[in-house]
Amino acid sequence: MTSHPFDQALHLEERGSDLHHWAVPETYGNMVGPFGGIVLAAALKSVVCNKLAEGRPSGIALNFLAPIGPQPVAIATRLVRTNKTNQHWVLEMSQDSEMVCTASVMLATPRDVWSDQEAAMPKASAPTADSRVSFPGGPKWLSQYEFYFSKGPLTLSGQALENSESILWLRDATPRSLDYLSLAAMSDAFFPRSFVRKQAMGQAGTVTITTYFHANESALAAQGTELVLGNAQANRFHQGYFDQEAKLWGSQGELLATSVQLVYYR
Amino acid sequence: MTSHPFDQALHLEERGSDLHHWAVPETYGNMVGPFGGIVLAAALKSVVCNKLAEGRPSGIALNFLAPIGPQPVAIATRLVRTNKTNQHWVLEMSQDSEMVCTASVMLATPRDVWSDQEAAMPKASAPTADSRVSFPGGPKWLSQYEFYFSKGPLTLSGQALENSESILWLRDATPRSLDYLSLAAMSDAFFPRSFVRKQAMGQAGTVTITTYFHANESALAAQGTELVLGNAQANRFHQGYFDQEAKLWGSQGELLATSVQLVYYR
Repeated sequence: MTSHPFDQALHLEERGSDLHHWAVPETYGNMVGPFGGIVLAAALKSVVCNKLAEGRPSGIALNFLAPIGPQPVAIATRLVRTNKTNQHWVLEMSQDSEMVCTASVMLATPRDVWSDQEAAMPKASAPTADSRVSFPGGPKWLSQYEFYFSKGPLTLSGQALENSESILWLRDATPRSLDYLSLAAMSDAFFPRSFVRKQAMGQAGTVTITTYFHANESALAAQGTELVLGNAQANRFHQGYFDQEAKLWGSQGELLATSVQLVYYR
Repeated sequence: MTSHPFDQALHLEERGSDLHHWAVPETYGNMVGPFGGIVLAAALKSVVCNKLAEGRPSGIALNFLAPIGPQPVAIATRLVRTNKTNQHWVLEMSQDSEMVCTASVMLATPRDVWSDQEAAMPKASAPTADSRVSFPGGPKWLSQYEFYFSKGPLTLSGQALENSESILWLRDATPRSLDYLSLAAMSDAFFPRSFVRKQAMGQAGTVTITTYFHANESALAAQGTELVLGNAQANRFHQGYFDQEAKLWGSQGELLATSVQLVYYR
């Protein structure tokens, strides 16, 4: 365990081979409960630190059932299946015996087959000190990241935008080399698209999020502490639920992760 | 139960309030085991027919752990949480006591709040008798649908395409009014993007799929038996795994569903 705030926030206390207790970190607090990305990262960590884990993370799907309070979260992991090149895990996360999240984690063993990236990194203005946005008085997790917006910042002007697309550079505010845990967290580091579209705060909460990890370990190591490019947009806001698609790109244009979430809003 | 092949294929035998047996339908057979879309639909049906179900389907995430054989699948459902406007269910699907799939299903109660669709239906040529593609000798599920390709058919020419995008019209070959079950099935009715990209068969299998349903019941009823537009593309093929994004559109341009999956390939 290092002294980095992200690693401190992900301290898992082992209570058995398939059970960890996670102290919900105030340092990554959101408006209600913790930042969803830190929950994703804690879930993922509970699997990758299991001695039965084989392969690198390839996907995580996490369902938010109820608000997460300040008390410790019990994370129960279960290895459901090990195949030749992938592993399936299921997780249950509870507080005071009440279930707050369920999740699935997939691990994969990379193989040398033909590979190609079809998606192209979106155009973005270079990050400058001017384009860095901070959120004084905002939820604590925001100060754990550097954000440089190229498109679709959250100004709270109340002037609705034409669409909900954001394009931004981001990284840990305290330098930390990228790994699957921080990539998982960053896949949820986009404001609810309803806020961006309306340029106003509202009510919103993720119901479920699915993130796929496309980069291998050496690509993450090569990315190191450089800024990651992220883009996110909703496809449809409809009767209280919208979806949100997000992508994370390495500084050289490599697609690191793709993510979708379904969000309650009003 | 009607005499439609899709409904016949989704016959669930009740073995308790939270347990159904599903006879794997030969009529929707794929190269190995059943068409993934019919598995999604069976999983979804096991939830929506439960007497505790509240709201319309908003999302399903299903993990394929192992090949599904011809024997009956036991689908165990568990209602994990009911909130004011949404419900979370978890499912375990097993054959001979061996787990073959796990899944999460989300139900939602629509509310009258501001709504907007940002994504626009892709341009597609009108479906004509000429553009209808059939697959004689192919897996049986293919003959359960009409397919009219505007872009990216699977010709098996062996001439790799520039990218893996397909745009096509589709519907049940035997007319059946669209509902959440058939929409779920259609969200997996796109060939593995590796096949399309290479214009050649290969090995591929879905590891996990997540589908969000954006349309409400009246929109599905209005769509009826009209052709649905679908588009799908991979973002990245990398070391044995690729992702595949798909969207399904009503004939009037309404976004009905969005879907992502992680696919093993070689």
